[in-house]
Amino acid sequence: MTQIQHHVYGKSRVRVMKVIRDGKNHSVVDLHVDVSLEGDFARAYTDADNSNVVPTDTMKNTVYVFARRHALDTIEAFALDLGRHFVKTYETVTRARITVSRSPWSPLVSDGDQHAHVQPSVERATCQASVTDAEAVLHSGLSDLVILKTSKSAFSGFPRDEYTTLPESEDRLFGTSVTAQWRYFDPTVDYNAARTDVRTALVSAFAEHDSKSVQHTLHFMGEAALRECRAIDEIKLSMPNRHCLLVDLSPFGLDNPNEVFQPVDEPHGSIEAVLER
Amino acid sequence: MTQIQHHVYGKSRVRVMKVIRDGKNHSVVDLHVDVSLEGDFARAYTDADNSNVVPTDTMKNTVYVFARRHALDTIEAFALDLGRHFVKTYETVTRARITVSRSPWSPLVSDGDQHAHVQPSVERATCQASVTDAEAVLHSGLSDLVILKTSKSAFSGFPRDEYTTLPESEDRLFGTSVTAQWRYFDPTVDYNAARTDVRTALVSAFAEHDSKSVQHTLHFMGEAALRECRAIDEIKLSMPNRHCLLVDLSPFGLDNPNEVFQPVDEPHGSIEAVLER
Amino acid sequence: MTQIQHHVYGKSRVRVMKVIRDGKNHSVVDLHVDVSLEGDFARAYTDADNSNVVPTDTMKNTVYVFARRHALDTIEAFALDLGRHFVKTYETVTRARITVSRSPWSPLVSDGDQHAHVQPSVERATCQASVTDAEAVLHSGLSDLVILKTSKSAFSGFPRDEYTTLPESEDRLFGTSVTAQWRYFDPTVDYNAARTDVRTALVSAFAEHDSKSVQHTLHFMGEAALRECRAIDEIKLSMPNRHCLLVDLSPFGLDNPNEVFQPVDEPHGSIEAVLER
Amino acid sequence: MTQIQHHVYGKSRVRVMKVIRDGKNHSVVDLHVDVSLEGDFARAYTDADNSNVVPTDTMKNTVYVFARRHALDTIEAFALDLGRHFVKTYETVTRARITVSRSPWSPLVSDGDQHAHVQPSVERATCQASVTDAEAVLHSGLSDLVILKTSKSAFSGFPRDEYTTLPESEDRLFGTSVTAQWRYFDPTVDYNAARTDVRTALVSAFAEHDSKSVQHTLHFMGEAALRECRAIDEIKLSMPNRHCLLVDLSPFGLDNPNEVFQPVDEPHGSIEAVLER
Repeated sequence: MTQIQHHVYGKSRVRVMKVIRDGKNHSVVDLHVDVSLEGDFARAYTDADNSNVVPTDTMKNTVYVFARRHALDTIEAFALDLGRHFVKTYETVTRARITVSRSPWSPLVSDGDQHAHVQPSVERATCQASVTDAEAVLHSGLSDLVILKTSKSAFSGFPRDEYTTLPESEDRLFGTSVTAQWRYFDPTVDYNAARTDVRTALVSAFAEHDSKSVQHTLHFMGEAALRECRAIDEIKLSMPNRHCLLVDLSPFGLDNPNEVFQPVDEPHGSIEAVLER
Repeated sequence: MTQIQHHVYGKSRVRVMKVIRDGKNHSVVDLHVDVSLEGDFARAYTDADNSNVVPTDTMKNTVYVFARRHALDTIEAFALDLGRHFVKTYETVTRARITVSRSPWSPLVSDGDQHAHVQPSVERATCQASVTDAEAVLHSGLSDLVILKTSKSAFSGFPRDEYTTLPESEDRLFGTSVTAQWRYFDPTVDYNAARTDVRTALVSAFAEHDSKSVQHTLHFMGEAALRECRAIDEIKLSMPNRHCLLVDLSPFGLDNPNEVFQPVDEPHGSIEAVLER
Repeated sequence: MTQIQHHVYGKSRVRVMKVIRDGKNHSVVDLHVDVSLEGDFARAYTDADNSNVVPTDTMKNTVYVFARRHALDTIEAFALDLGRHFVKTYETVTRARITVSRSPWSPLVSDGDQHAHVQPSVERATCQASVTDAEAVLHSGLSDLVILKTSKSAFSGFPRDEYTTLPESEDRLFGTSVTAQWRYFDPTVDYNAARTDVRTALVSAFAEHDSKSVQHTLHFMGEAALRECRAIDEIKLSMPNRHCLLVDLSPFGLDNPNEVFQPVDEPHGSIEAVLER
Repeated sequence: MTQIQHHVYGKSRVRVMKVIRDGKNHSVVDLHVDVSLEGDFARAYTDADNSNVVPTDTMKNTVYVFARRHALDTIEAFALDLGRHFVKTYETVTRARITVSRSPWSPLVSDGDQHAHVQPSVERATCQASVTDAEAVLHSGLSDLVILKTSKSAFSGFPRDEYTTLPESEDRLFGTSVTAQWRYFDPTVDYNAARTDVRTALVSAFAEHDSKSVQHTLHFMGEAALRECRAIDEIKLSMPNRHCLLVDLSPFGLDNPNEVFQPVDEPHGSIEAVLER
C-alpha cells in the first residue's frame, strides 16, 4: 500500500587529517568526507532485513583505510576511488556519492623545517564523485570564498510598485560568499590545475566587472570560468547577497558618502544559476 | 555559446514576529520566511537588464505587508497567499516557492494575563508552497524534533567484511533529530489538525517500535503517518543517527551495562527516505 | 624575568549521557562537564617538568568513572564529588572548578514503557563547584531560558542628547535569554527543590512585572528569587535585550499598532547584575 | 535588604564596515564593537528611574558617528576615543569598556584598481580599552589563530594512576586556536607595529619550539612576545588543545606511523596562563 519512493543512507562528517612527511617538510591534508549510498536496501525498511546494509561504521572505517593508502594528491582521485570501491564491493549498491571538502593549511613560517602549519583561510576546496557501475560523474568546487566589491557595483532599473522602497543605486557595496561547483567534461584532467584556472577566472572576473546586479556579475564570472578552463562544461554558482546597509547619519548632522555601513546577516538575497557550455 | 541552464533568486531568512492580541491574551507567531522565484530573468544575467527583476528587498517588504494583513492561523495559508501574490503580480515569475518555519512560543505562566511567553522548544513547524499559474503544491513538515530510544533498539545481521569492526548490538541507544516533510493530497485540509495527526503518529510509532535499524523505524514511522493522516499522500523523513558511544570502563575495573555513553556529533549516520501511498 | 602570574588548565566539553533504568522506566541524564584545575604546575611551563601534570585525558576518564558510580540525582552533588576528588587525590591541585550543565529529556509519550524520550527544550540546568582543601563554593544556575513580554514593558525617561534617536516607548516587546547563577548560603540544601523555587520565582516575576526597563525587571526577578529561596544569598542575572524592531509599514499605507516586528540578533543590549542578600 | 553588588550594561555586537577610499584604492575596516558601561545606575534597577540610563541604542549611534569621523588607522585609538567619550560625556559613567575586533580584508587581485577584496582569514585583531576619569588601560590581542605542529611535540613524564589510560607520546600532533591578549606598558606605542612584533614572536616561537606540553610551548611563546615587544608588560595566552586522535588501523592489517588522524572538537584540553614581565 505504501511504497518507498526513494531512499539513501550513509555516513556524514567523517573527519580525516593526514600528515604527509617528506623528510622534514610536512604537509597536511584536512578533509571532511560524506559517503552516501543508493541501492536495493528496501528490505531493511520493510522487513528488518539488514543482510545487505553495509553499516555506516564500515563506511567510516573504509574512509580511514583509504586515507592511509592513498597519495591524496587530489581530493578528486580520493573521492573517485572511494566511490568505485563501494559500487564494486557491494553488489547491492547501485550508486555511491562521495563528497569531500578540504580545509587549507600552509606553512606557518617560510624558513626552516616545515612542520608548523596555519589554517590561512576558511575557504574550502570541494568535490563530489557520483559513481555507478556504468559511469562516474565528477564535480569539483569551492565554498566560503568571502569577497566584496567597494566600487563598480550598481543596482537600478528594476521595476517599482507599491511594495518597493529600495532606492536605485549606482554605487553600492556588493559582498558575497561564493559557492561554486563545476562539472568535468573530461574526467582525466589535472584537477588541481583546473581548480586554479577556475578560481582565478572567478576572482578576476569579480574584481574587474562593472556590476549591474548580482545576477549580472554571477553570469560574467561563470562565463569566465567556462572560457578559461576547457576541461569543464558546466558551472553552478551560488552567490548570496550579504547586505551592507548605509548608515543614516543625518540625525547627527553628518553626511555618509558611501563610507560607513552596517553589515547584516539576515535577511539576505539568494542568487544562484547554472551555466553550461 | 554558454547558456543559463537554471537560475533562481530570492530573499532568505526574513524574520517576522507578529503579536496577535485578543484583549489581555496575546499570542506570538515567530517566523522565518524564504522567498524564491523562478521565471524569465535571463536578460538580467546576460544583458544587465533589470527591468523584470523584482528586488529581493521588495520581496521582504511584501512579507511584512502580508504578515500585517494575514490572520496567520496557519503558516500554510500564509505561504500559499504569498506564493500566489508573486505569480499573479509579476508576469515574469513562473514559479514562486515560499518556505516558512515557525518557532514555538507558549504562555510562561498558566494564570493571569497571557502576555508573557516562553520558547518551549527548538522544534519548528515548517511548510513550503510551490505556486505556478497552473497549480500549487503544498508540503508541511517539522524539524529539530530531537528524540532518543533507550530500549527496543538493535542493529545486527548486517554484512561483515574486512572493513567491519562494529559489533552486533541487540540493545543500543538510538538518538536522532527528525526532519519530516509531507505532501497534501488534498490542499484544502485543516493544516493544524493534519500536523497534529502526523506528529502524533510519528512520535507514537518511534516510541513503541521494536527497532531493528534506523531504516526499519523510519519506515514504521512513515507508514504510521500515512495511515493516521488521510490528507497526505507522501512523507519524507530524514533521521540522522546521532551516535552515543558506550564508554569502555574496563581499564578502571568497571563494567558498563549500557549505562554511560559519550554522545558524539560527528561523524553521524544519515538515513532518509520518501514513502508514498 | 618573566613570571607566570596566573595559570589554569583542564578538560572542557566532556559529554556524558547516562541512562538510569528502573525496570521499564528509563531516565536520561545528559551532561556537559568542564574540569579546570589550579595548583603548582609552574614547572611544566618553565622546565618542561610534567611530573605533576594530571593529563586532561585522565580528567575525562575520571568524569566517566564517576558518572558510572554516581546516582546523579543532582548535578550539584556530582560536581562537588568530582571537585573533592581532584583536590584530595592530587596534592598539587589547590582548586578544582567543576562546571556541569544538563540538557533536559522527558518521556516522549505519557503511556506505556518510558524508554522513548524527547529533548523538550534548550534550557539547561547548570552548576559550578569550586573546591579547595578548605572549602567548597557551590553555584547553581540555568541558561537559555528564552522569554518574551508582549505587554507591560516600557522604556522612557532616559536622557536625550545629540546621539539619541530612540523614541520613548510605553509599550514595546521585551525579549531575552536569561542566564542565572545563584550561590548557596547553605550548601546542604535540596538542590532540585531550590532550583524549582528560584526558577518559578524568576518566571513569575518576569510575567507579572510592570517593566520600566530591562534593569528594572532584572532587579525585580532577582529580588523574587532571593525572597522565595532562603538557601541562596546571591544571584547573578544576565539578560541580553534581544531587540524586536517595529516594522515601518507607512510606505505601504498601513499602520502597525505594535503588531509586526523584525527580531534582530545583533546588535543586542547587554544587561547584567549581581544581587545579594 | 537585597543589594546590587555589581551591575554593568551596554551594547554588544555593533557591526561597522568602513570603506576608506584613496582614489581608486579602497581599504575596508570591518569591526565588531561592544560598549559596556559601569556607573551609578542603581536607581534604574530599584526605582525605575531611567534619568541617567544612556540607552544602548545611543551607544550604537555613537559608534557609527565615531566611525564616520575617525581615521581608523588603529582599532586601539578608536576604542580609546570611544571610551573617553562615554566617561567624559555622561557623568554617571565611572568606567567604559570598549571591545573591538577586526576581521581582515585584503585586495582580491594584485593589479589594477583596489576595489575588490577578499576575507583571507578568520583570524581577528582585537583590543579592549577600559577607561575611567583617572586612567585608561589598553589591551590588544588576536583570536582564532589556528595552528598545528606535526613534529617536535611530545607529552610524557606525567603522573599515572588508576584513571590514566593516555599513552606517553614523543611525537604527537599539537593543534590549537590561539587567543592572545597583551597589555601595553606604554599606551602611546605604535599599536600596529607592536601587533606585528607580538604576532611574529608568537608564531615563530610556536614553529621552532621543541614542545614537551601545551603549557611548555605556551610559556615559550609568551616569553618570546615579552622579549620581542618592549611596549607590553603582560600577555595572556589561551591555547585549547584540539585533539587529533591517531586512528587505529590494526584491525585492517595496517600500521599507522603517525599519518592518519581523526580531529575531534570535543572534549578538548583548555590551557591558559598570564605571563608578566
